[in-house]
Amino acid sequence: MASTILPLELVDRCIGSPIHVIMKNEREFTGTLMGFDDYVIDMVLRDVKEYQVTPGGIIETPLGQTLLNGNNIVMLIPGGRGPKAI
Amino acid sequence: MASTILPLELVDRCIGSPIHVIMKNEREFTGTLMGFDDYVIDMVLRDVKEYQVTPGGIIETPLGQTLLNGNNIVMLIPGGRGPKAI
Amino acid sequence: MASTILPLELVDRCIGSPIHVIMKNEREFTGTLMGFDDYVIDMVLRDVKEYQVTPGGIIETPLGQTLLNGNNIVMLIPGGRGPKAI
Amino acid sequence: MASTILPLELVDRCIGSPIHVIMKNEREFTGTLMGFDDYVIDMVLRDVKEYQVTPGGIIETPLGQTLLNGNNIVMLIPGGRGPKAI
Amino acid sequence: MASTILPLELVDRCIGSPIHVIMKNEREFTGTLMGFDDYVIDMVLRDVKEYQVTPGGIIETPLGQTLLNGNNIVMLIPGGRGPKAI
Amino acid sequence: MASTILPLELVDRCIGSPIHVIMKNEREFTGTLMGFDDYVIDMVLRDVKEYQVTPGGIIETPLGQTLLNGNNIVMLIPGGRGPKAI
Amino acid sequence: MASTILPLELVDRCIGSPIHVIMKNEREFTGTLMGFDDYVIDMVLRDVKEYQVTPGGIIETPLGQTLLNGNNIVMLIPGGRGPKAI
Repeated sequence: MASTILPLELVDRCIGSPIHVIMKNEREFTGTLMGFDDYVIDMVLRDVKEYQVTPGGIIETPLGQTLLNGNNIVMLIPGGRGPKAI
Repeated sequence: MASTILPLELVDRCIGSPIHVIMKNEREFTGTLMGFDDYVIDMVLRDVKEYQVTPGGIIETPLGQTLLNGNNIVMLIPGGRGPKAI
Repeated sequence: MASTILPLELVDRCIGSPIHVIMKNEREFTGTLMGFDDYVIDMVLRDVKEYQVTPGGIIETPLGQTLLNGNNIVMLIPGGRGPKAI
Repeated sequence: MASTILPLELVDRCIGSPIHVIMKNEREFTGTLMGFDDYVIDMVLRDVKEYQVTPGGIIETPLGQTLLNGNNIVMLIPGGRGPKAI
Repeated sequence: MASTILPLELVDRCIGSPIHVIMKNEREFTGTLMGFDDYVIDMVLRDVKEYQVTPGGIIETPLGQTLLNGNNIVMLIPGGRGPKAI
Repeated sequence: MASTILPLELVDRCIGSPIHVIMKNEREFTGTLMGFDDYVIDMVLRDVKEYQVTPGGIIETPLGQTLLNGNNIVMLIPGGRGPKAI
Repeated sequence: MASTILPLELVDRCIGSPIHVIMKNEREFTGTLMGFDDYVIDMVLRDVKEYQVTPGGIIETPLGQTLLNGNNIVMLIPGGRGPKAI
């Protein structure tokens, strides 16, 4: 039997946990999900790191607390290990 | 006689089964569909693999559970063999 | 006298018949239309082939059943001969 | 005195007549307008020709009947002579 | 005291007069405004000229009557002298 | 104590005053704000100048009265000195 | 226990405080948040600085008070140190 989960349920279960977010403009972030809204799924993260993949390796930039516009979020991966851990 | 199926019916039948998803930004994923919402068809997949087509071949990256933003999904193929199997 | 037809009427008449679809990202498909929804005209096709126009010719890739996001569909041509037949 | 016309009136008057349509992706078509819807102005054309402007001249491709997604239509010119006649 | 005018008032006053329109895809047109709709401000022009700015100068193409999709209009300049007169 | 202002209040206070507007396509304008609508914040300006930043300096083009499509406006700076004064 | 916060709550708490905003077109700003609207989260900032990252370093441009279109805002970082401090 398939265990099912709605997208908003998944986001809700991630509250207080680390997630990995990839944006339309290919920016990537990890952080702990602090909150979101139900409509466009804007998200607030804390302890955010941005990852830039360069020929010389992945550069991490700490950003603290950040609000991400949900219209620009392409995908969300619970666990939040970021591109370096992939 | 033509057998017909509505788009949401097709997505619903895929619950618990592998699918192949192609995004606006050309990212491609396979995974088992765990759930979706009816409005913009955001989807939750598990056992996700991302495929990057490079001159040297197709690189597979395991991502675990993933939420995909439905506004960025261009097409869905039930079966989920991914680009390598094509 | 002009014979008129509404866009959704045309799509409805294509149920069970081959069509040729061109997407915003220039991907092209043929397949038999199995269903669609009235709102954004998402479509389900079966026996789908994707066509890639390359300098060396047109590459056909069989995809089986496929759901296409209507927001990304630019045009639909009943008959479904694909770019090779043009 | 200015003679006025609403956009939908113009489209309606074109039913049964040739038009020239230019899309967001710069594709250009001529054809006889068979129908349209009032909301996003999707259009059905018959006897369609697509025009590709190349350094070697304009290539015409006959497409038969075609449905064009109104969200991707940038402009419509009644008369439908296409780019070659301009 | 500032004299104020609403955007739709300005468009309405242009009925029967020449205007210059610049589109999202950088196409530029002049023509006499024949009508518009209140919602997305689709416009109908007559005696339209399209202007293409090239290294060798500005090329004018007469288009006759034209419907422009309001979602693709970036700006409108009453007077309609076109880029050559600027 | 923080003094607060709503976005539409700011736009309203600019009526009759010079503003500097930057569009999605990077076009930049200054002019005196004559009016706007509350919904997508289309704006009417008079005494408009367009600024093009080139390697040889900034080129100013006078445009007179202009309607700007609010969906294409990225930012508005009261004062309207334009890029040259920055 | 996770401490949660809604996106609009975060924006509201930033009133009167410095923030760092990154736009769709990669423009970056810092400034003190003066107000916002609840719908598309247009924002008014004062004491704004724009940051341009160039090979020779980061160029700061003071802009004074600025209205940013919320549809073009990708992310907001409370604290407003800008890219140089990252």
